[in-house]
Amino acid sequence: MASAKKTSAINSINSTRESPAIKSARSVEITQVVEWREGNTRRVEDYLAAEEPLEILIGRRPLVVTMRTPGNDEELAAGFLLTEGIIEERAQLAEIIIPVRGRNLVRVKLARRAQIPSVGSRRYFAANSSCGVCGKASIDSVRARNIRPLNSGFRISADMLCKLPDLARPSQETFGRTGGLHAAALFDSTCNLIVLREDIGRHNAVDKVIGWALLNGRVPISDCVLLASGRGGFEIVQKSIVAGIPVVASVSAPSSLAVELARRMRLTLVGFLRGQRFVIYSGEERIL
Amino acid sequence: MASAKKTSAINSINSTRESPAIKSARSVEITQVVEWREGNTRRVEDYLAAEEPLEILIGRRPLVVTMRTPGNDEELAAGFLLTEGIIEERAQLAEIIIPVRGRNLVRVKLARRAQIPSVGSRRYFAANSSCGVCGKASIDSVRARNIRPLNSGFRISADMLCKLPDLARPSQETFGRTGGLHAAALFDSTCNLIVLREDIGRHNAVDKVIGWALLNGRVPISDCVLLASGRGGFEIVQKSIVAGIPVVASVSAPSSLAVELARRMRLTLVGFLRGQRFVIYSGEERIL
Repeated sequence: MASAKKTSAINSINSTRESPAIKSARSVEITQVVEWREGNTRRVEDYLAAEEPLEILIGRRPLVVTMRTPGNDEELAAGFLLTEGIIEERAQLAEIIIPVRGRNLVRVKLARRAQIPSVGSRRYFAANSSCGVCGKASIDSVRARNIRPLNSGFRISADMLCKLPDLARPSQETFGRTGGLHAAALFDSTCNLIVLREDIGRHNAVDKVIGWALLNGRVPISDCVLLASGRGGFEIVQKSIVAGIPVVASVSAPSSLAVELARRMRLTLVGFLRGQRFVIYSGEERIL
Repeated sequence: MASAKKTSAINSINSTRESPAIKSARSVEITQVVEWREGNTRRVEDYLAAEEPLEILIGRRPLVVTMRTPGNDEELAAGFLLTEGIIEERAQLAEIIIPVRGRNLVRVKLARRAQIPSVGSRRYFAANSSCGVCGKASIDSVRARNIRPLNSGFRISADMLCKLPDLARPSQETFGRTGGLHAAALFDSTCNLIVLREDIGRHNAVDKVIGWALLNGRVPISDCVLLASGRGGFEIVQKSIVAGIPVVASVSAPSSLAVELARRMRLTLVGFLRGQRFVIYSGEERIL
């Protein structure tokens, strides 16, 4: 069966704030479950966050398989290629091809010869829903990425920062129904929501947001704060630095390596952003 | 500089319940942070969950790099090799070699020729802290693992199940200090805690628990429930099935693919285990 294909030339994607049309109807599935509550059971319908593997190919060559929530796959692919160092700018992307029916895959055509990571002759690698260091076969290569320190003059007030979790919630459509999704969102310094994406994987949500920005010509994202659900791990910080994001805030705890990297690269890292309280782990000069 | 090495022959590891001595002192780091609360800032010391890359080698050959919380690295390596299908039983492991000082690595010597996944001639792959499908370069290979349905007659009462989160908490030492760690724990049907492990990555915590069981001759783990923090994703379910665990419970939501796999493989999957309520997504016959 020949599968119909949608080909989108990158440069024709317009730069509107957010394109709801890209959203997939498959991000939620309905299933029968048994609920137990204080000794009583009943059969109910429940919503599940969809999780399916996505294969990203460069040309005909498989690059990665990631477990993700369907939807915004072109953003996920674009963001992954950028944050994993395979491309450095939008101009290196020629086309992103998404089959309309059929297999879970995205095929990327590069405009010019971009570096594809390799060990020995060839490397295939795969990522799961929150995978950020895939494809590196040694510890050195995890640390040795050519990432430059941030010098953004972006500032945000503590009051504004405290508002972000509440402002993100109404846009977390799938989370509201399933309770099982991570979200990443970009806000400007006056709390305007620029874009929000949800995914079963934290790293995918971040890659989708960064991919959206890349496809809309907004990288480096030097005038925004990234709000991420879950903890602020090493890869979230690494991806943000690659995309030029000056401030990363999460409602949970960062790891030691995330803090070390944030300090070295002058990224402002905020954790435990809950109510009228947060902790600044790095780059306090950007919080007014 | 020659690094001192500790060699542990697998079969000499005794089968006691849990070995606190294996725990690493490096699982927590202390750092200076700025706390903002209702308009006031103060400098305080804060604990961070440690996150460092670990390289696992088979012989001299790099297999994977995973971001993990240091400690119980031999369990993590053993569990990873089992749940990713590289080995099938403890007898295939000859030695696990851990450098006492120096690099973050574990070297595994196999007792006999075990299958190492390969695409084309050679494959190197890397995982992050919650990576479970790394190393598969196509969607088919994610689905095509030779995993058999569970037939364990294990049963647990709903009342016992509800007690598990509270029973696990006192053992979550690092989480208590950092608020930033995932945990996985095995309990028997009368709520005895068999083993609990913490890690910055959910999958690592599960691999450490399963690795502990493997090294202690307790695989298949057919008489336990696995309590996992965070969501019950596809890889958590996959790893549990490989280890023979009949019941997986988490405090959060599973994904659609996790539910699909659990139903196909007859694993009992419980989500939203909070207070006196939970949801059974699969295998309700094991809940009394």
